[in-house]
Amino acid sequence: MKDNFKLKIEATDGNARTGVLKTWRGDIRTPAFMPVGTAATVKAMKPETVRETGADILLGNTYHLMLRPTAERIHNLGGLHKFMNWERPILTDSGGFQVMSLAQLRKITEEGVAFQSHIDGSKHMLSPERSMEIQRLLGSNIVMAFDECTPYPATKQETADSMRLSMRWARRSFDAFHNGSVHAAKNALFGIVQGGVFEDLRLESIDALRDMGFHGLAVGGLAVGEGQEVMFEVLDYTMPKMPTDVPRYLMGVGKPDDIVGAVERGIDMFDCVLPTRSGRTAQGFTRRGTVNLKNARHTDDPRPLDEECGCDACSKYSRAYLSHLIRSGEILGAMLLTEHNLTYFQDLMQGLRDAIAAGKLSDFVADFHARRALGDIEPL
Amino acid sequence: MKDNFKLKIEATDGNARTGVLKTWRGDIRTPAFMPVGTAATVKAMKPETVRETGADILLGNTYHLMLRPTAERIHNLGGLHKFMNWERPILTDSGGFQVMSLAQLRKITEEGVAFQSHIDGSKHMLSPERSMEIQRLLGSNIVMAFDECTPYPATKQETADSMRLSMRWARRSFDAFHNGSVHAAKNALFGIVQGGVFEDLRLESIDALRDMGFHGLAVGGLAVGEGQEVMFEVLDYTMPKMPTDVPRYLMGVGKPDDIVGAVERGIDMFDCVLPTRSGRTAQGFTRRGTVNLKNARHTDDPRPLDEECGCDACSKYSRAYLSHLIRSGEILGAMLLTEHNLTYFQDLMQGLRDAIAAGKLSDFVADFHARRALGDIEPL
Repeated sequence: MKDNFKLKIEATDGNARTGVLKTWRGDIRTPAFMPVGTAATVKAMKPETVRETGADILLGNTYHLMLRPTAERIHNLGGLHKFMNWERPILTDSGGFQVMSLAQLRKITEEGVAFQSHIDGSKHMLSPERSMEIQRLLGSNIVMAFDECTPYPATKQETADSMRLSMRWARRSFDAFHNGSVHAAKNALFGIVQGGVFEDLRLESIDALRDMGFHGLAVGGLAVGEGQEVMFEVLDYTMPKMPTDVPRYLMGVGKPDDIVGAVERGIDMFDCVLPTRSGRTAQGFTRRGTVNLKNARHTDDPRPLDEECGCDACSKYSRAYLSHLIRSGEILGAMLLTEHNLTYFQDLMQGLRDAIAAGKLSDFVADFHARRALGDIEPL
Repeated sequence: MKDNFKLKIEATDGNARTGVLKTWRGDIRTPAFMPVGTAATVKAMKPETVRETGADILLGNTYHLMLRPTAERIHNLGGLHKFMNWERPILTDSGGFQVMSLAQLRKITEEGVAFQSHIDGSKHMLSPERSMEIQRLLGSNIVMAFDECTPYPATKQETADSMRLSMRWARRSFDAFHNGSVHAAKNALFGIVQGGVFEDLRLESIDALRDMGFHGLAVGGLAVGEGQEVMFEVLDYTMPKMPTDVPRYLMGVGKPDDIVGAVERGIDMFDCVLPTRSGRTAQGFTRRGTVNLKNARHTDDPRPLDEECGCDACSKYSRAYLSHLIRSGEILGAMLLTEHNLTYFQDLMQGLRDAIAAGKLSDFVADFHARRALGDIEPL
């Protein structure tokens, strides 16, 4: 493990752990939630505001950035951090997940994935080598290996073939990343465990990756439709086999209760579009569950969205005002609700970290579920 | 003039003047530019950020607010200031201008204007009395008399009839405003000079209003298609007849060079949607003129939009990044460009105030035009 990328575990509670992931661009408190900044912006947010919500690290999407404005352009402009005015760590995905979802527009071979842009139909290729090159051009601090996100549902044979292709691509990603560049010396590469919902395939995938020398391991191919129960089952047999000295990242997860359950099972890192996307579709996350601000009962309600939240949206505005902004299609509605949702997610992570540090995670989890069971506050 | 609403003129330069308009909600430095917060929000901006650009006062629209969320709802929630989290002065228009633009959806009588909502087709009435009631319910600090915005072009007879109707409505507005309410004791009412492009009608309108006891006078019915030359002509014969001891407000103006010319002619207050609307349509105002950020020449340009501007958009981001956000339809593009444009307008007002105070307005105006004549910076 390189000195400038190190996970320092400070406390454990059951299978959960809390600590700090040290990088040359700053510390990441774990368990960590990474807001998604797809197109070099966390939608409807200034980066300073994202930081104020408690984010230590952002996620950027290779697929979107390679198409627009292009990785080469960002590189020429000084890299992604400078481009988007975020000096702290950035993790980039490999592009694999997004190109898989292009359906009719892509073709997978051993070499990689040929695909057409969803923006203008132009033709592109993503391979382990090209994905590593793009992530280097962007200046990513945590680079993800290029993999195939196995579709769900899939037969065991399909899942095995897909996982084994991803493992061969993981080796090529590793070799391409460690090409002697300055970038590789300062930054980290994560491998991705695949294998769908099959225990033996997950363990085979871990075996393939664990001695290769990745700086962290992700669990991929979950939150793709299998449901929370199945996802937790997979984590239950996967996590005990995962190396403990590196960060463990559950990709694309998730809802607050998904995160809580995954932290209990030993996950250190999360990313999800849920808080930001919901912020643009009138969904607010609160300690008492999810609130739809389009609902008529909010239009005269002078109370904040979440009385225990200290964000701008909750400390300065009423549900009535947020409701008005959303009904009027005002941009400020998306801005405030996104800020609130990101604050909610970061507060949840801070609560989990504090609970693990105090050895009281089970109390925290019980309280988390009890409050949600109450449902939203009564109408006035 | 009531004590808690007083214009203190600190310096004059030719017909221009600078000073402070004192209100119980805070000082307004004049000449002042008022950002437009149509639906209880300056679009794409947090109110704190609007304040940081240098705004002392916002404008709210009676027509929009009466329909959604309704003046009664805002009143029940504690008034417009609390609703939208802006504690400084707010001027509200009377609704007259907007209902006139409804064309087929409205009917004008001596009583007022019956109209249908553009949102849901519901039927409403605006009259001097109802407009005063709505502006009181909102908690407006500068209330505008209800008037008819005379169409342009119009014959002299049409313009005279329209202006005289507005003068009768001004009297009714005045009487309805001074109804003994606490609101009237603390806040101000402005009359609106009409008369189109006819000197004798403008002077007749001023005569009708000047002794009624308004706390300020606006020049209405300009910037409706007559062009800058005609607008300045109207100001040239109107302004010398306007009272000098109250603020003088040019409604709905305007482009930077409109504002500069109007300040030279003695105007103290302005409002316009231009900086905010342009911020959502890729138009940036700079000291060297207007820039269209959709233009391909910006996509690789690492320079700020305006090198002399200290706003977030110019100090933290490149033209390349702004261009990327706009091409990608990202909300942050509208946020940053709106913030820049409002900063540009407020910087312009500060420049005008400083120049008048120093007795160097003509130098300032010459420099203003000389820089714009240079055109935008050369492509790299």
